[in-house]
Amino acid sequence: MTDRLTGPVLVVGTGLLGTSVALACRRAGIETLLADVSAEHLRTASGLGAGRPLRDDDAPQVVVVAVPPDHLADAVAAALLTTNAVVTDVGSIKSQPLAAVAGEVSPGELTRYVGSHPMAGSERSGPLAASEALFDGRPWAVTPHEGSQADAVALVEELARVCGGLPLRLAPDEHDRAVARVSHLPQLVSALVAARLADAPADHLALSGQGVRDVTRIAASDPGLWRQIVAGNADAVLAMLGELRGELDALMAAVGSGSGEAIERVLERGVAGTQAIPGKHGGAPTPTASVFVTVPDHPGNLARLFTDAGESGVNIEDVRIDHDPGRETGLMELLVDEALADRLLAALESKGWVAHR
Amino acid sequence: MTDRLTGPVLVVGTGLLGTSVALACRRAGIETLLADVSAEHLRTASGLGAGRPLRDDDAPQVVVVAVPPDHLADAVAAALLTTNAVVTDVGSIKSQPLAAVAGEVSPGELTRYVGSHPMAGSERSGPLAASEALFDGRPWAVTPHEGSQADAVALVEELARVCGGLPLRLAPDEHDRAVARVSHLPQLVSALVAARLADAPADHLALSGQGVRDVTRIAASDPGLWRQIVAGNADAVLAMLGELRGELDALMAAVGSGSGEAIERVLERGVAGTQAIPGKHGGAPTPTASVFVTVPDHPGNLARLFTDAGESGVNIEDVRIDHDPGRETGLMELLVDEALADRLLAALESKGWVAHR
Repeated sequence: MTDRLTGPVLVVGTGLLGTSVALACRRAGIETLLADVSAEHLRTASGLGAGRPLRDDDAPQVVVVAVPPDHLADAVAAALLTTNAVVTDVGSIKSQPLAAVAGEVSPGELTRYVGSHPMAGSERSGPLAASEALFDGRPWAVTPHEGSQADAVALVEELARVCGGLPLRLAPDEHDRAVARVSHLPQLVSALVAARLADAPADHLALSGQGVRDVTRIAASDPGLWRQIVAGNADAVLAMLGELRGELDALMAAVGSGSGEAIERVLERGVAGTQAIPGKHGGAPTPTASVFVTVPDHPGNLARLFTDAGESGVNIEDVRIDHDPGRETGLMELLVDEALADRLLAALESKGWVAHR
Repeated sequence: MTDRLTGPVLVVGTGLLGTSVALACRRAGIETLLADVSAEHLRTASGLGAGRPLRDDDAPQVVVVAVPPDHLADAVAAALLTTNAVVTDVGSIKSQPLAAVAGEVSPGELTRYVGSHPMAGSERSGPLAASEALFDGRPWAVTPHEGSQADAVALVEELARVCGGLPLRLAPDEHDRAVARVSHLPQLVSALVAARLADAPADHLALSGQGVRDVTRIAASDPGLWRQIVAGNADAVLAMLGELRGELDALMAAVGSGSGEAIERVLERGVAGTQAIPGKHGGAPTPTASVFVTVPDHPGNLARLFTDAGESGVNIEDVRIDHDPGRETGLMELLVDEALADRLLAALESKGWVAHR
């Protein structure tokens, strides 16, 4: 075995992720083979240039399994049993599928399996949503088990890089604890907060601001998929929910007893947490400031705004549109380096924009 | 008394909100008077054109109290006792201050008090952060008590409109239940989720995606201010936290027992909640789709992107930058009408952008 990715790469499951992996490999000039239980998905992915359907005499170097969580372990085991390839997958959880695969194949065959998890996706699904650029610059967890061959691990990391991702090696259980914390807990809590809005009176909901919209945005995700992810990572998810519940009880006690100090300690821990998230480009977060601009809501105005902002020489770090609920305008929030906010504000006001910090 | 706002309007507390109210009144040509315990804030606000300092012989038509929550009731009572004006405030909670004011003034004087709460703010504070446009198009809750004079209520609603806001009448306790649900609960839960990140290993945090960033964004807010808000709305906040805790217990039981159906029901309630939030321009939410574009991260590129997007004739409903953690590029997410996403995608690709849905 070599750790040079030469292909062919077989992609099993030509949905969003699988087809994107295949397109990214094709971008790098690597031959790709496709398999899917859905003949229609297979035709579509192939028609998009993601590769040709698998034939019996093909001998892939790497198999990438990209099927829904509930079918993942069976598909990985089948790939190990029917090929001599290194096998990986792109599923959101790693320990449970590994244990299931280990129950279906021999220890020797298991050495060719190295799980992985690219941190990329879309609210859409299916091959038509795929993109060769989906993984560009994204973290891509590579999760070898204790018996994984070193060459197989290197090959999967090479695949991640070829697809544009940034490989990050983690043990499977470590990965699952990490995503329970940074992905599954936020997902579930977002759903719990959003559920509180489902039956709320309209004049209560009319007071909704950007905060509740931010907190509940991901609660709109597909319940059928997330049910599989959460159930498949039950232990790590329960540990995080348990931690949250302990803190919730402490917060309720603080609010109930009117202890402002205890409430403030909870809030300060939250501030510390937001500062712990890696900043732009992986570095430490840099202090940013917001400049708000009123933008009449029709095509062309955003272009004019960004042209004027660009001429100020100030780099826009982030943007969001905070829509006025009652009018055909949006309030644009431009996040820039704190030290440059006044310069941007002055530049925009000089061009006639109604802006404020 | 008349319900025509003729002024002068006295603003007590020249921080972000107070100074913005004064500037908005000045924009409408109404005379404004300013008072603040901080001589420096007063000078700054006055220097910004927000009005002149209050004199002993002034007779304001309306007093707007814009001081921190802990001092609000005393300042409202003082305004009722020392003037014959209609008195309002811009605080985030309404029942507790009303009860406190009622303990300090006579029932007759209390008839001139009508609480209010503009749904606008900034992560900054102080008069320098103020803007005459801060309230434009924003909901502005007006919360009369049972004894409020009808003319006083009309005058405060007129003030909200003059400042550009959209008055929305609610009873004080109704308002407090509403903000507990759509503001205080999301704020506290965001802090609880963010707190889970505070001591997390760096390689766990490296897997952070846009979801956890969205959910925890507001957790960066000022703990000192939020402590006052939460403590001042303890009953309504506790009711919401209790609801959340009940649902959390049910979710933990579902995850612990491996009941995918029960997990999915929780997630589906969350989806329903996101659909209940009023959409753009106050109407029902319209289905949007995302188009992702890779944007090299330096000034001018966003202008070029929005120029090209503008020429496609497709209106951008919302935008966000999802920064690649490892590279000097950003992934721009453009949200547009679902039916127009493919048109935008094709237009951008024809201009050489790397884009996908």
